[in-house]
Amino acid sequence: MSAIEITKESIEELITLIDTREEKELLPVLEKLYPADIAELFDDLNLNQAVYIATLLEPQKKVDVLTELEDDVKLKFLAGYTNEEIAHDFFAFIESDDAADILNAMESSQGKEILRTISDKEHSKNIASLLKFPENTAGSLMAKELIRVQHSWTIKQCTDEIRIQAEDVSQVYTAYVVDEFEELLGWISLKKILLSPENQKVEDIFDDNIISESTYSSGEEVAATMQKYDLVAVPIVDAFNRLIGRVTFDDVLDYVKDEAEKDYQMLSGISGGKDSSDTILSNTRSRLPWLIIGLAGGIASSLVIGNFEAELARNVQLALFMPLIMAMAGNVGVQSSSIMVQGLANNSITNSDIWGKLGKELAIAIINGLVCSGLLMGYGFVSGNHIDIMMTVSLALLSVILMAAIIGTVVPLALDKLKIDPALATGPFITTSNDLLGLFLYFLIGNLFLI
Amino acid sequence: MSAIEITKESIEELITLIDTREEKELLPVLEKLYPADIAELFDDLNLNQAVYIATLLEPQKKVDVLTELEDDVKLKFLAGYTNEEIAHDFFAFIESDDAADILNAMESSQGKEILRTISDKEHSKNIASLLKFPENTAGSLMAKELIRVQHSWTIKQCTDEIRIQAEDVSQVYTAYVVDEFEELLGWISLKKILLSPENQKVEDIFDDNIISESTYSSGEEVAATMQKYDLVAVPIVDAFNRLIGRVTFDDVLDYVKDEAEKDYQMLSGISGGKDSSDTILSNTRSRLPWLIIGLAGGIASSLVIGNFEAELARNVQLALFMPLIMAMAGNVGVQSSSIMVQGLANNSITNSDIWGKLGKELAIAIINGLVCSGLLMGYGFVSGNHIDIMMTVSLALLSVILMAAIIGTVVPLALDKLKIDPALATGPFITTSNDLLGLFLYFLIGNLFLI
Repeated sequence: MSAIEITKESIEELITLIDTREEKELLPVLEKLYPADIAELFDDLNLNQAVYIATLLEPQKKVDVLTELEDDVKLKFLAGYTNEEIAHDFFAFIESDDAADILNAMESSQGKEILRTISDKEHSKNIASLLKFPENTAGSLMAKELIRVQHSWTIKQCTDEIRIQAEDVSQVYTAYVVDEFEELLGWISLKKILLSPENQKVEDIFDDNIISESTYSSGEEVAATMQKYDLVAVPIVDAFNRLIGRVTFDDVLDYVKDEAEKDYQMLSGISGGKDSSDTILSNTRSRLPWLIIGLAGGIASSLVIGNFEAELARNVQLALFMPLIMAMAGNVGVQSSSIMVQGLANNSITNSDIWGKLGKELAIAIINGLVCSGLLMGYGFVSGNHIDIMMTVSLALLSVILMAAIIGTVVPLALDKLKIDPALATGPFITTSNDLLGLFLYFLIGNLFLI
Repeated sequence: MSAIEITKESIEELITLIDTREEKELLPVLEKLYPADIAELFDDLNLNQAVYIATLLEPQKKVDVLTELEDDVKLKFLAGYTNEEIAHDFFAFIESDDAADILNAMESSQGKEILRTISDKEHSKNIASLLKFPENTAGSLMAKELIRVQHSWTIKQCTDEIRIQAEDVSQVYTAYVVDEFEELLGWISLKKILLSPENQKVEDIFDDNIISESTYSSGEEVAATMQKYDLVAVPIVDAFNRLIGRVTFDDVLDYVKDEAEKDYQMLSGISGGKDSSDTILSNTRSRLPWLIIGLAGGIASSLVIGNFEAELARNVQLALFMPLIMAMAGNVGVQSSSIMVQGLANNSITNSDIWGKLGKELAIAIINGLVCSGLLMGYGFVSGNHIDIMMTVSLALLSVILMAAIIGTVVPLALDKLKIDPALATGPFITTSNDLLGLFLYFLIGNLFLI
């Protein structure tokens, strides 16, 4: 729990205090609030109010609030400052990865001017070096700030170095041990540094069993490594194994959550990682393409059915069970495809057992298909529908369930082989194609048995 | 990257070495492998082979491998040991939360015997105290092991205490400051302890702005707090604000990932958090209920259509567009409901703006509906279908999209109000109910315009 609970009432009270510039009342409240809380408060303030609050914060806290803001709010808030102010008041105290994120979202001309204006040239160079990494690589997720010690040092020298670097590095858990060429040799925990005698040599006690990732590893790989080995931070090395940055757990936690939300939305037919506070137009843009795919699928379905119009006119009852066939094809397809997509994302499906997975999905589909067809037959007897119609529909249902399971399993695997994100194969895409094929199979079987 | 890459070939080689008991060859390999890697290797070993490997590991590493195993593999592996061996060889070195997880999965009689056999009574009591917390609470996620210092101590006393406790606490980032009644007062980072003079008093330098959670907070609340404030660990207090445990980032990372997978599967109509390696039967059990809901919905649809059989016989063309109407109702419903479910899970939807969200979803639906109906009308002109059929279908499409958006928005909100997990309203459930209502609306409109 935060020291101060933020409620609707407290926000209103704060806004009144801001508008009347009651500095004395505001200061102790702001003192108690965490940067993340102040950032949340900014959602309810206009630019003037937000900039005023920022003037009351100490320099480091002001920057911490900035980094906690939502991406679009960040730029809106910084619009209240000149490039010079951004460079001196914010970027002087910001960690390199947070700075790079902001610069990536800005016009490149503004970014360049800010970088030129930063007085600490080393810091400015660090930030600029992060801009070259493509999105979603370890390079783009990492920060340059970390504690780096030479293997030839004593513990005393480590402590002195931490004292110097600690101001720039907000979260210190581990010191990374490098040789004179900056090559990563291992690590030493803060606990070990604290408990070792001052004249102890680093090279005698550091742990050389170290897990690192390279700058071009994907965000997924970094997240999987940190999760597998329970790492609070992972060092990032270049092609020559030289230590150049680290990714910390908080970045990875955000990353994992964002990715999960994107996959979830992909499955529901929404692209681009929207949330309920985005604008109507951007929400429409991210949903409409999937609906148009669905519409095209529906029109294609009407053409399929159109081909069987004569049969349909003879057996109007066939139309009654079209929705059932379609719904089941869609459900089974989504079940199989989402299990595949998750398995592929977790690396729990490997090349060697693709046939095993397919066999298993088929076995599940046969059981589910037999149970559902059996239930449908049972319903047929009770309901007094024509027995030949019900036989036809039940047989079609079994076939459609098998077909949907095969498509739902094979399509994500095929996309993955083709290096296309298999998550694209979930949601409306798989439902639409299964609808179409399911209906076709249905009328084909109907045609065979009901003429 | 791990020091040794695990490939199919290296596993086969290791198994040969294990079967011929080549201890000298195995030892250096095991030395280099991380516990998580050895745990992965266990998936490919039988019980005998796994127990043999365990005999070659040092005590702490053996326990680390155990805690890294999948839940079901853990129990299978422990079946190779007597209760006495489990207590002395494993539980003596295990952190309390990991021990409690294992005990929760065991027969309670076996668990009791193991607890009785542990020689460190304090440790045994700690583990037992965790067993009482319900699943998915902070109490069930926390470990008892942490560094606890008195506010009246000096830094020297802190360091001494860390030296004593550090053996039991695997990950030390922070020391928690308590008073003589064990009440949580604040925290002090390891960095600060390292950099402060030995005779400095803790009470003069510790940070009293501390975020904690209570034992009965939900896993979601703990995860949200740690994510919001970028905490590597969060202290857990009882009703009297006494410090009793902590939850670390690795537990939360696992938790967030598991929850995301469950939500994803719920949306695809799979319950119970399955993965592709679970058995065919357990996979069937988790999917079949949703398919039966779909089947029941399909049968209900057939009854709805049956009511309009006469109209259908007169206008067989109406049947052609049933799939289109159903597919669109399903897609729009899932889009709206999943945005709501995510918003509710993130706490980004509050009571005050429910009407705002509903209005927004309606606005999006109107735009999407007009575009899709317009496209369908356009197709109607080009394709040469009956104009009155196409008018009817387009009008029905618009109505159905609006209806689906309203249902998709309202149902999750209503479930949330009733304290039912709104994620239940996604996937097959919302698709099935929208299919039904959509078809009903379709034939109603068809009936009005085509007689």
